[in-house]
Amino acid sequence: MSTSSYSAGRYSTAWRDLRWSQKEKAIARKAFDLALTRELDAVIRQAKERATRLQEPDELWEMEHWLTQRRQEIDAKYDFRYSVLPLVFANLLRDGRISEDDLRGLGEDKLEVTRVAASL
Amino acid sequence: MSTSSYSAGRYSTAWRDLRWSQKEKAIARKAFDLALTRELDAVIRQAKERATRLQEPDELWEMEHWLTQRRQEIDAKYDFRYSVLPLVFANLLRDGRISEDDLRGLGEDKLEVTRVAASL
Repeated sequence: MSTSSYSAGRYSTAWRDLRWSQKEKAIARKAFDLALTRELDAVIRQAKERATRLQEPDELWEMEHWLTQRRQEIDAKYDFRYSVLPLVFANLLRDGRISEDDLRGLGEDKLEVTRVAASL
Repeated sequence: MSTSSYSAGRYSTAWRDLRWSQKEKAIARKAFDLALTRELDAVIRQAKERATRLQEPDELWEMEHWLTQRRQEIDAKYDFRYSVLPLVFANLLRDGRISEDDLRGLGEDKLEVTRVAASL
């Protein structure tokens, strides 16, 4: 058996090229923005809590480091390109930032990829 | 006239090589630590105030940037090498982080350099 059957080409990545209707794009944008708002609200809430507990200089620089990490994570996580959106939604489902209800109206092609990825 | 008279060598930097007695070292360390503690306490206080006012995500990342800047400024400003300490104290005097009283006991050679640098 040729080892080529194990190459990346063996797996379909056709979902990257799925066509998104205008209605689906609007639903996706709404779910994406909802999750991002929730995520940012949570960071603001946590930052306020951390600041209340601040006592030592070390804790100040830990807070700076934590903010930098959160910003980088959020930048990486929230990528609104249709070619990666099912994976983005899969992460958000897994983290509880959105529910399947928030994605209602997307085509079964997108939902199936999202569900499979969320289960991995 | 030779232009060499305008080279850096024209100005004495002998103050970089001043001898610090054990007593002077102890006084310098105490004044330095006092100023650093005051500076860090002020940053902690300001961070708490900023966090209280946080409402928008942009303000969160502005706070991160502000913390990074404060850390870098403090790192650069608090340099406990005897060869630069008169300049460090000059900055701290100018910023009101220490008073001349905190430096009492240092030799007139160090105080004179500190005063001149603070006045620049």
